[in-house]
Amino acid sequence: MASSDPASNPVSKIVTACVLIIGNEILSGRTQDANLAFLAQGLNEAGIRVREARVIPDDHDVIVRTVNEVRGVFDYVFTTGGIGPTHDDITAQCVADAFGVLLGVHPQARRLLESHYPPGHLNEARLRMAMVPDGAVLLPNPISRAPGFQIGNVFVLPGVPSIMQGIFEQLKYRLAGGDKVLSRSVSCQLAEGTLAKDLAALQDRYPDVEIGSYPYFRRGDFGVTLVLRGTGRERLAAATEELKALVRRLGGDPQEGLSEG
Amino acid sequence: MASSDPASNPVSKIVTACVLIIGNEILSGRTQDANLAFLAQGLNEAGIRVREARVIPDDHDVIVRTVNEVRGVFDYVFTTGGIGPTHDDITAQCVADAFGVLLGVHPQARRLLESHYPPGHLNEARLRMAMVPDGAVLLPNPISRAPGFQIGNVFVLPGVPSIMQGIFEQLKYRLAGGDKVLSRSVSCQLAEGTLAKDLAALQDRYPDVEIGSYPYFRRGDFGVTLVLRGTGRERLAAATEELKALVRRLGGDPQEGLSEG
Repeated sequence: MASSDPASNPVSKIVTACVLIIGNEILSGRTQDANLAFLAQGLNEAGIRVREARVIPDDHDVIVRTVNEVRGVFDYVFTTGGIGPTHDDITAQCVADAFGVLLGVHPQARRLLESHYPPGHLNEARLRMAMVPDGAVLLPNPISRAPGFQIGNVFVLPGVPSIMQGIFEQLKYRLAGGDKVLSRSVSCQLAEGTLAKDLAALQDRYPDVEIGSYPYFRRGDFGVTLVLRGTGRERLAAATEELKALVRRLGGDPQEGLSEG
Repeated sequence: MASSDPASNPVSKIVTACVLIIGNEILSGRTQDANLAFLAQGLNEAGIRVREARVIPDDHDVIVRTVNEVRGVFDYVFTTGGIGPTHDDITAQCVADAFGVLLGVHPQARRLLESHYPPGHLNEARLRMAMVPDGAVLLPNPISRAPGFQIGNVFVLPGVPSIMQGIFEQLKYRLAGGDKVLSRSVSCQLAEGTLAKDLAALQDRYPDVEIGSYPYFRRGDFGVTLVLRGTGRERLAAATEELKALVRRLGGDPQEGLSEG
């Protein structure tokens, strides 16, 4: 990827993230994940690029090993899922084990839960939602009860999309991002095979702009959407103009789309 | 995961898979992946459990390293994306490099493309879709032109969902699966925190049935869906009956759902 090669753009600062989606229900196909696309877009707004995502089961050893592998490779790690009150919610314990620290009740999280439940309803299971690894910082939850938490470069979020989004919207302002990736897109009804040779030559001339080609088939219509992404607004604009000219030269009618992240 | 621990069920045969979703457009959040849920369900029908999925960028070194890592860990690997005619379609070359073999034009794939395009339209870019690693077996594509391919335990499929599904439906009959995971589900309007203690005790009594708890909030309604999964039909039925009795005992009204995979 030319655009992520510092040598091609020595002044750019690239900050990376990995998303870990934890949950048997995603791996069984029962539930369609919606959190990756949301986090990818939200993180890019903050200047952080999701470079990998993994979907892993509710399995202690797999979670511990994966957290430790990716937190050493990426600037940030965001996990979703497995922080509720039931027996299959094991993410907090696994993250504590990955960092080699104890899991304990966080006093502030306990107070949040005490104020949420009627007297007598904060049972042992619910109190699990106040347990975080030693040294973790709570992530406020504006939607419901239990907070997420951060330890080191790992941010632990719930799996229910609306709650995950509520927590993320509050935490994103304190993430230290780098250059934001800008994008533009051009669609046309030429076939990919017609465009491919000239498109490759254009990519070669713009190593700092990543050009992706995505065929579509919808409403009996077919065509291709070409997405240009990069951190330099002027270079992106120049590549987009060259691309539109290229499409016209090959007999197509380039339609510029809205930036879609 | 008790249900995947051979010691807990010595006669079960567990066959595993990893899904690799290759494409910058998924990691940027521009495109919502739809292939993992389809493959997970289809593979379970064939007795194969998806135990991990990774979303990785169109980056040669990352793809090669990831393919080599996961093909040694899982029985099967399925990749989606990156096998079209454009410069960003690099999956076939990466898989060849992962296996240490050359990439070349497959005669049968070339004939398929020759018969698909009008004379003179099979240009150099389109011919790339006939290039597979030496030793690979073609996977017929009933929808459009270019085939997928298999090499070793790695199945390489396109990213466009309708085409990927068409190829998968034809190949799944020759996959060697193990015990199929059966599932049942029970929903109720009790809170997870109310159920959690008894649910954990039920899970302890049924180590061969995986019990997942998934809260939902929809149409102003809230509740929890409890999903039971396992390979033993009778054990699954017994656990489901115990779960329904447990829900009633706690004041809930258990609603059994259709099996959802």
